[in-house]
Amino acid sequence: MGEKLAMVVFSGSADRLIGMAILAGAASAMDWEVDIFLQLWGVYAFKKDVMKKNLNFSEFNELKEAVLKRIQELNLPMWFDILREAKETGKVYIYACSTAAKAWNVTKDDLEMVDDIIGAGEFLEKIKDANVTLFI
Amino acid sequence: MGEKLAMVVFSGSADRLIGMAILAGAASAMDWEVDIFLQLWGVYAFKKDVMKKNLNFSEFNELKEAVLKRIQELNLPMWFDILREAKETGKVYIYACSTAAKAWNVTKDDLEMVDDIIGAGEFLEKIKDANVTLFI
Amino acid sequence: MGEKLAMVVFSGSADRLIGMAILAGAASAMDWEVDIFLQLWGVYAFKKDVMKKNLNFSEFNELKEAVLKRIQELNLPMWFDILREAKETGKVYIYACSTAAKAWNVTKDDLEMVDDIIGAGEFLEKIKDANVTLFI
Repeated sequence: MGEKLAMVVFSGSADRLIGMAILAGAASAMDWEVDIFLQLWGVYAFKKDVMKKNLNFSEFNELKEAVLKRIQELNLPMWFDILREAKETGKVYIYACSTAAKAWNVTKDDLEMVDDIIGAGEFLEKIKDANVTLFI
Repeated sequence: MGEKLAMVVFSGSADRLIGMAILAGAASAMDWEVDIFLQLWGVYAFKKDVMKKNLNFSEFNELKEAVLKRIQELNLPMWFDILREAKETGKVYIYACSTAAKAWNVTKDDLEMVDDIIGAGEFLEKIKDANVTLFI
Repeated sequence: MGEKLAMVVFSGSADRLIGMAILAGAASAMDWEVDIFLQLWGVYAFKKDVMKKNLNFSEFNELKEAVLKRIQELNLPMWFDILREAKETGKVYIYACSTAAKAWNVTKDDLEMVDDIIGAGEFLEKIKDANVTLFI
């Protein structure tokens, strides 16, 4: 059985999602399975009408412009591009929390890259043998 | 030996506590043990004079009113009600960090649902075999 | 083989770093290995020109002054002092994310207490057998 990284993505802030995507991309490149569970703001950030426009930062708003400029200078890919590539080449599965989907009144079709909408219990069952578990 | 979910709850923001409670409730419903360790803002949010009044959000403050309204529309229980029910029916244990309790100058009697005040080392010992570990 | 605590430190906020340092110190005092991976704001907070001046809080800014005053009253050590002592007496290893180091344009010499700059994949390999994994 292979290695597994599991992340509960509660946050919808672009800075935290960059950190998340770098971990997901790195795990996927080593052929780890990556399981992601989107909660409240995570579901929001994966909405088709939000994903590319959302530049909310979770900390240090006064440094946001400088960080975004630097990311452009370095030609770093956006977090959703890192995640999309990992999904295309590896074993990356993205689930949206059924309660959060109800809160945002969305179905799978309203969300980018989401494989399924499931309950928190079903996700915990899937990841109970993961090597690394994180709450973003 | 059964499955175990362990959460270090540093945050005291109501939105993150909703995410935490949904995970705790789901794990408890599957008969997992749930161990919770409250740090700084977590202890604050469990204070008897704070718990029900606290509507601090960790992100997207501009969307807070809409989210709270939607939660009411859907008749979703508050995070502390989810947690209380899980505690009454399952194996959910809540500990407050001794340093944080000192910082807030509180004892167990000042806090809701807290089983004991312990040190971080004692908590780590308790959860070293947990299936899923998260920092909220 | 001994116990291991692994933390991905994305946040650079002083309040979350206090929570992190208390866990690191407690684990180290029990002779656990502690592996820390600094991402975006974590790298920022470990910069030599930032570490001691940074008093950013991640939540409840209106209570920051009261909390900082109380920490002084109780003579609690600062988070970096807890971490430094744990590093001197135990098995605490601190790595900075290579992408974040590039974003901040820093080398190991610009950072306090950092043992090495490595990629996310290398860190995940190091911690795949950790007992407790957290994203701060």
